[in-house]
Amino acid sequence: MKSQIVTFLIKCPDQKGLVAKITNFFYDKGFNIVSCQQYVNAIEDTYFMRVRLNADGTDISKVSLEKSFLELATPLDFDWSVNYGDKKQNVAIMVSHTSHNLYDLLERSKEGRLDCNVKVILSNHDKLRPIAKMFNIPFHYLPVTKDGKEVQEKQVMDVLDANEIDLVVMARYMQILSSNFINRYPERIINIHHSFLPAFQGANPYKKAYERGVKLIGATAHYATLDLDEGPIIEQDVKPVTHESTPTTLKIIGADIEKLVLARAVKCHLNYQIIVSGNRAIVFPEAGE
Amino acid sequence: MKSQIVTFLIKCPDQKGLVAKITNFFYDKGFNIVSCQQYVNAIEDTYFMRVRLNADGTDISKVSLEKSFLELATPLDFDWSVNYGDKKQNVAIMVSHTSHNLYDLLERSKEGRLDCNVKVILSNHDKLRPIAKMFNIPFHYLPVTKDGKEVQEKQVMDVLDANEIDLVVMARYMQILSSNFINRYPERIINIHHSFLPAFQGANPYKKAYERGVKLIGATAHYATLDLDEGPIIEQDVKPVTHESTPTTLKIIGADIEKLVLARAVKCHLNYQIIVSGNRAIVFPEAGE
Amino acid sequence: MKSQIVTFLIKCPDQKGLVAKITNFFYDKGFNIVSCQQYVNAIEDTYFMRVRLNADGTDISKVSLEKSFLELATPLDFDWSVNYGDKKQNVAIMVSHTSHNLYDLLERSKEGRLDCNVKVILSNHDKLRPIAKMFNIPFHYLPVTKDGKEVQEKQVMDVLDANEIDLVVMARYMQILSSNFINRYPERIINIHHSFLPAFQGANPYKKAYERGVKLIGATAHYATLDLDEGPIIEQDVKPVTHESTPTTLKIIGADIEKLVLARAVKCHLNYQIIVSGNRAIVFPEAGE
Amino acid sequence: MKSQIVTFLIKCPDQKGLVAKITNFFYDKGFNIVSCQQYVNAIEDTYFMRVRLNADGTDISKVSLEKSFLELATPLDFDWSVNYGDKKQNVAIMVSHTSHNLYDLLERSKEGRLDCNVKVILSNHDKLRPIAKMFNIPFHYLPVTKDGKEVQEKQVMDVLDANEIDLVVMARYMQILSSNFINRYPERIINIHHSFLPAFQGANPYKKAYERGVKLIGATAHYATLDLDEGPIIEQDVKPVTHESTPTTLKIIGADIEKLVLARAVKCHLNYQIIVSGNRAIVFPEAGE
Repeated sequence: MKSQIVTFLIKCPDQKGLVAKITNFFYDKGFNIVSCQQYVNAIEDTYFMRVRLNADGTDISKVSLEKSFLELATPLDFDWSVNYGDKKQNVAIMVSHTSHNLYDLLERSKEGRLDCNVKVILSNHDKLRPIAKMFNIPFHYLPVTKDGKEVQEKQVMDVLDANEIDLVVMARYMQILSSNFINRYPERIINIHHSFLPAFQGANPYKKAYERGVKLIGATAHYATLDLDEGPIIEQDVKPVTHESTPTTLKIIGADIEKLVLARAVKCHLNYQIIVSGNRAIVFPEAGE
Repeated sequence: MKSQIVTFLIKCPDQKGLVAKITNFFYDKGFNIVSCQQYVNAIEDTYFMRVRLNADGTDISKVSLEKSFLELATPLDFDWSVNYGDKKQNVAIMVSHTSHNLYDLLERSKEGRLDCNVKVILSNHDKLRPIAKMFNIPFHYLPVTKDGKEVQEKQVMDVLDANEIDLVVMARYMQILSSNFINRYPERIINIHHSFLPAFQGANPYKKAYERGVKLIGATAHYATLDLDEGPIIEQDVKPVTHESTPTTLKIIGADIEKLVLARAVKCHLNYQIIVSGNRAIVFPEAGE
Repeated sequence: MKSQIVTFLIKCPDQKGLVAKITNFFYDKGFNIVSCQQYVNAIEDTYFMRVRLNADGTDISKVSLEKSFLELATPLDFDWSVNYGDKKQNVAIMVSHTSHNLYDLLERSKEGRLDCNVKVILSNHDKLRPIAKMFNIPFHYLPVTKDGKEVQEKQVMDVLDANEIDLVVMARYMQILSSNFINRYPERIINIHHSFLPAFQGANPYKKAYERGVKLIGATAHYATLDLDEGPIIEQDVKPVTHESTPTTLKIIGADIEKLVLARAVKCHLNYQIIVSGNRAIVFPEAGE
Repeated sequence: MKSQIVTFLIKCPDQKGLVAKITNFFYDKGFNIVSCQQYVNAIEDTYFMRVRLNADGTDISKVSLEKSFLELATPLDFDWSVNYGDKKQNVAIMVSHTSHNLYDLLERSKEGRLDCNVKVILSNHDKLRPIAKMFNIPFHYLPVTKDGKEVQEKQVMDVLDANEIDLVVMARYMQILSSNFINRYPERIINIHHSFLPAFQGANPYKKAYERGVKLIGATAHYATLDLDEGPIIEQDVKPVTHESTPTTLKIIGADIEKLVLARAVKCHLNYQIIVSGNRAIVFPEAGE
């Protein structure tokens, strides 16, 4: 694993000595602990840790590392995962008509500001194909036909499988996914909603925001779950607006918020900063990364 | 009216020539127009204006000013009001247990940063009496007894009447006002709600915010209407929070947002910057004031 | 001028009756006043107005409009300009190595979120040519050679002239412009500086920000003047940072601020919202535009 | 030390195994590690840790704890300090004419939102005595007379000594402290400067901000050092402003920023969240506190 950054994400019942036991384990194995972030949820009595290791000082194999980690994890009832930072994640972007999030994500990955391979763009409309072409990303136009959404979702899933997709980013994809689809990618579908949830769930949030006369508008990136717009929130932001705003100008102002919020959320996911617990997302800050 | 700043607030159907006609009117009467702010709502085809006048150049009386303004206003179907800036508004602050908004408002008025007379503090609990004492403001402890809320509201209204109250500020007053009470002070009751409405209406917004796992929390100042937490929004603000936050820490973070939001809203009201239209509050910015 | 929006920008000594006189003038000519924004600088006793007119109700010609406006403007000592909104401005973007501002501006203009024609991209390095190609914009590689900067600036100016450029946007162009160049485009060169000016003027602001240990970083868009980084500020914004930040991570965080700040500033300029007065930029907000 | 929260702050050269060794040490001694925050400055190759311990599980004495910790600390070259959370810090507030920071700090400490004893208020003017009286805090009027500042500073230091002051808060104290004074309270004097440093150091920052035409203003809380306004920055914030602002309105807007920034900085200091390194302040976030 030479010169790799290995990241462990751990969730377990809180108990005495956890940080000592875990950091010792890695120290004994010859790792250098690059960063060690923890969070204790005292309400649910749960412990969370994100630890990043530099593997330069060890020649342990993945298999034996995981085998011996299990001996630590099992008695302490760890819910854990490890990433070896040795392969970029494959990302699929799903869109409909709106272009700003797509441009933003493609630019960031192209310029190396998002550590992933954008393998494919899928859409239920053909409109944004030229943007895919600009960035040389395959574009799949998969409309929802009279054969129904089930058929279309099947086509989408086939493309995702064929491209071995690790993360699905819904960059203003205006279709509600079936439970079948969502269950297939647990905590691997990120959606951007154009309001500061839980305000203005569902359709036309900017129109609703205008009608309610709010003085700020926002955007929310969250994992897609069976409950529409109710999944764990990864990132949110807002901007102030005034009475001068119309649904149209709110859309324009909001577009810039949506871009930043979705990009930050995708980056946190790709960077293994997130542990989901119930309906809350624990998002560890970047630690000098 | 020498050396007074006179403020007109006007709302009317949009039509050609309004700004010319209105500004001419005041120019002809010898006023100097200090500022003239307008807003056209193209969706509702409505025109709004806030105009501030320096009366130094004229010796017209209020009566004749309003009489002749009526001749302009009637054919153009104005909904208008005028303030002569010659008397401070009387303010009543209603509280329950929470002190931070009360301190903040009392400090600002004492230090001349809120242009009003805080005449009285009313509460359904006796807890905050010492703060009233510090600032030498009469404190009325009016608990809701078994005689019911109606009786208590009657006592409250008697105090408000006795003090000729122009504006009621609900600074975390944890009682729902009756429609009878609210209808008596149209657009003259400002409430602070400790969430970014319309999210988390009703009770325990910070607990709900924790449970929803939002990444920002906020506060909203609005005019109280018959629909709880649904009145015209005057001011809102938010602060980012993390998964580390508990309902308790959210309360502490939120307190600072609530103070700023309520103080700004009260200032805008006292300064005649607000025109309510339907359920939206047009809040003109300060114009070099 | 049918169905055009005509914008007048006016600056003059403050005096009584200005708004009445100006709005009357346009009303008499048959214009509908779409918006009328004013600002009085009481310290310098100066009056500023931005008025937008709908020309549908009039068939006056530009020539006679300007001729009769002069009769109003001259005695009142107006410094004024008018735009008829009948032709898009030609924009040149100058860059060096950094791509994020270039991507952002090209995307916005391509998607119709910036009302201009990006005619040409100029650079002292060849690195960003592929981006120009993606968006089909001519790219001119004009390096500073041993023949000196004067020669290169001459080449730049020739390209600007050949393309009848109205606005030059320095999107992280890392060369200091000569006074000769700057004087040729007064208030028509917008530069983005990657700090909240006046902090960290000159080179390496992110390195300086790290060393100073600031808790927020920012970006500033301003008109280029003879004094480096000291021109009138159009737009600024900041984001909070922590001690974890390095000069490298500050650069990444800052890139997103730079994009928004420069785009907003360019939009305000293209939209005729700005009047420069001394070293201060009066930036009128969009009025329901 | 039963039911106390013990906080260690550690700074040392970075090296392998630090977190394991430190957390083990405390685990072996029977402490429960409530939170463990670390930061590695890769540029200076320095390691920082803040660890909070619950002493319930141990009956070790302070003396023997520190004695055995030294055996760990010395070979690893720790620069460290420990706080046992068993006594509130004594705070002195120094002011001149401006009241808003004083009100804010007194309210927070009175309401238990700042964990300290405000023992005394010192001022070179008598103006704010009534506020001290409201909160029942001793007020010392110590003017700078013709005998010179040295004499006055001596009087100030006598009061600080008599009150065993742990932290001096300069809440808009408009006097420059001598090096003699500053050296006596290293990292124990917090000053609020009314600009986003390093912009607008020295006098009249709001006037300078107006003249420069900035689009945002801010405030900075920092430790006082020999170089005026150049000490380690603890906290900063800003608010957007427009061309409408005058030096006077900037002061009013700024006051609210100053209050929040100073209060947050003082809270971080009282809560042992800060390690100063060179001219940078490492400020660990609250960890579920």
